[in-house]
Amino acid sequence: MNRIIECVPNFSEGRDLQKIDEIVAPFRARQGVKLLDYSNDEDHNRLVVTVVGEPEPLREAVLEAIGVAVRLIDLNTHKGQHPRMGAVDVVPFIPIKNVTMEEAIALSKEVAGEVAKRYNLPVFLYEKSASAPYRENLAAIRKGEFEGMGEKIKQPEWHPDFGPAEKHPTAGTVAIGARMPLVAYNVNLSTPNLEIAHDIAKKIRFIGGGLRYCKAMGVELKDRGITQVSINMTDFTHTALYRAFELVRIEARRYGVSIVGSEIIGLVPMEALIDTASYYLGLENFSMQQVLEARIME
Amino acid sequence: MNRIIECVPNFSEGRDLQKIDEIVAPFRARQGVKLLDYSNDEDHNRLVVTVVGEPEPLREAVLEAIGVAVRLIDLNTHKGQHPRMGAVDVVPFIPIKNVTMEEAIALSKEVAGEVAKRYNLPVFLYEKSASAPYRENLAAIRKGEFEGMGEKIKQPEWHPDFGPAEKHPTAGTVAIGARMPLVAYNVNLSTPNLEIAHDIAKKIRFIGGGLRYCKAMGVELKDRGITQVSINMTDFTHTALYRAFELVRIEARRYGVSIVGSEIIGLVPMEALIDTASYYLGLENFSMQQVLEARIME
Repeated sequence: MNRIIECVPNFSEGRDLQKIDEIVAPFRARQGVKLLDYSNDEDHNRLVVTVVGEPEPLREAVLEAIGVAVRLIDLNTHKGQHPRMGAVDVVPFIPIKNVTMEEAIALSKEVAGEVAKRYNLPVFLYEKSASAPYRENLAAIRKGEFEGMGEKIKQPEWHPDFGPAEKHPTAGTVAIGARMPLVAYNVNLSTPNLEIAHDIAKKIRFIGGGLRYCKAMGVELKDRGITQVSINMTDFTHTALYRAFELVRIEARRYGVSIVGSEIIGLVPMEALIDTASYYLGLENFSMQQVLEARIME
Repeated sequence: MNRIIECVPNFSEGRDLQKIDEIVAPFRARQGVKLLDYSNDEDHNRLVVTVVGEPEPLREAVLEAIGVAVRLIDLNTHKGQHPRMGAVDVVPFIPIKNVTMEEAIALSKEVAGEVAKRYNLPVFLYEKSASAPYRENLAAIRKGEFEGMGEKIKQPEWHPDFGPAEKHPTAGTVAIGARMPLVAYNVNLSTPNLEIAHDIAKKIRFIGGGLRYCKAMGVELKDRGITQVSINMTDFTHTALYRAFELVRIEARRYGVSIVGSEIIGLVPMEALIDTASYYLGLENFSMQQVLEARIME
C-alpha cells in the first residue's frame, strides 16, 4: 500500500456477534484494505473497528459497512453505557502515509455525501472536516443522542451537512470527519493521592494552560495503590509524546512525587516513538527516511 | 511482503556507471523484491546495494546480480582504497520480519551452494553461517585480498566452504553469510581531544571489556572542533542503542566531557529506536504489536 488512510468507525452494536460479523465483513479480504482490529464492548453496546487502506478501496469498504450497519441496527431498541446518536455513530478518517490532511478531509466529505445519498442518513461533518468551529467537537454534535436528535436537527444551527434534516427512523445520524491519529498515553505516579494526579492533569492539558494537543485527567489505579495522569495526545506531530512526559515529571516535583512508568494504550504510529528516541539521544540530522520499515513501506 | 530478509551485497565496482546499472538491474521491478538503496564510492571503487525481499525472489535476484558482477568485473585490474577479495566481495543476509536467524543462515547456504555451482566461484561462509569460529570474521577471511587469495585457499584451514579450492581468475572469492542488522551510531563529545574519544571507545566496546555487541573507535570532527565515539552496534536486540549512549555519557564524566548529540548513519530498524523510546518513557507492558506500521506490514 503506497498511500494509507486509517479509519476507526464506531458502530452501535456490541452484543450480537452475528451482526458484528456482517458489519466487519466488508473490511475482510479486500485488495488495498487491511482490517487491523475490531473490538466490541457489551456494556457500551458498541463496536470499534480499526482499518487501514488506500483511499479508494477504503472508501468503498467503509460505505459498504455503513450500509450493513444501517440495515441491521435499530437505535430504538439500543441500550448501552456509551452515548450514541446513530447506528453508525462516528467515522473518523486519519492520514497515515503519503496522504495529506486535506486529502483525508476530502475523502471524509466524499463518504459523507455518498452516505446521505445511498442511505438517506443525515451526516454531520466534524473535527477537521467541520463546516463551523462549533461543529468540530463530537460531544457537542452528539448531545441529545439518538432520542433527542429528531428535534435537534430541525434547528437551523444543527442542520446536517449532508442528507435530510430529519433523523433516520432506525439509524439516527452520523458524524464523519478527518482527524490526526490519537495516542492514548498514561503516565503513572508514585502517589495514591488522586488529587495530585488531577492537579497535574489540569496543568499539562490545553484547557488548563498546558500543551496545545493534550487532553488529560487524573485516574486512580486502585490495584497498584498509585494514580495516573491519563492523556490523549490529539496531534503528536505538534505536541510530542516526550513533552507531555517531561511536563508531568516537572509538575510532579512540586508534590515530591515521581513517575514510576508510563503506558501506551492501543495503537501508536511509529513516528511518535521514533521522535521520542530522537529527542533523548539528541539525534542530529535524523530523517524518518532512515527507518528501514519506512523505506520498505514506501 | 510478509516475510522479509535484507541483503547488502558489496560489489568491487565503484566507477563504471554502466556496469553498476547492470549489476543493480536484477533488483529492480521484481515482484517480492525492493531495492532500497545503492551507492558507489569512486575512491573505494566499490558498490554497496541495500535490498529487501521475500526469501525466494530475493535469492534469485541476488544470484542473478552476482552472475552479472562475475561477468563484468575483473579484479586483476581493480584498484581502490577498500580491501576486497572478489568481484562480489561479501553478501550478508539479514533477517528483518517473520524470518528467524536460522532461516537466514539456511538461505545464505543455499545461495553459497548455487554461486559455487553456477559461477565456479569459491565461497566462504562467514558470520552466523561460518563453519568454524575462526571464519566468522570477514576481515580474517579477506586477509591477503584478491592478490593473495590464490595461495591462501590452497591451505587446508582456508579451503572454501563451497566451490573449487582455487580462486576464480577474474572474480576471486566471495564471503556469504547471515548476520543481525548493523546500526552505525555515533556519539558526539564536547571535546576536541581525540585521545578522550579513543579512551571512551575502548571502554565501551566488547574487546575492551565493554558491551558485547558494540564496536567503537574515536574519530575527530575537525570542522566542528569536536570528537566522536563512532560505534557499530552489531546486535541491537541484545545490546540496546540507549545502553551504548548512556555508557558513553557515564565514561565521559571522568574527563569532564559531555555529549553534544548523536547520529545514526544509514538505515536503522524501527525496533532499535522504539526500544530506546520505551526505555526513556519507562513504558510498561509495551509490545511492538502496538506499532501501527508493524501491524500494517504484518
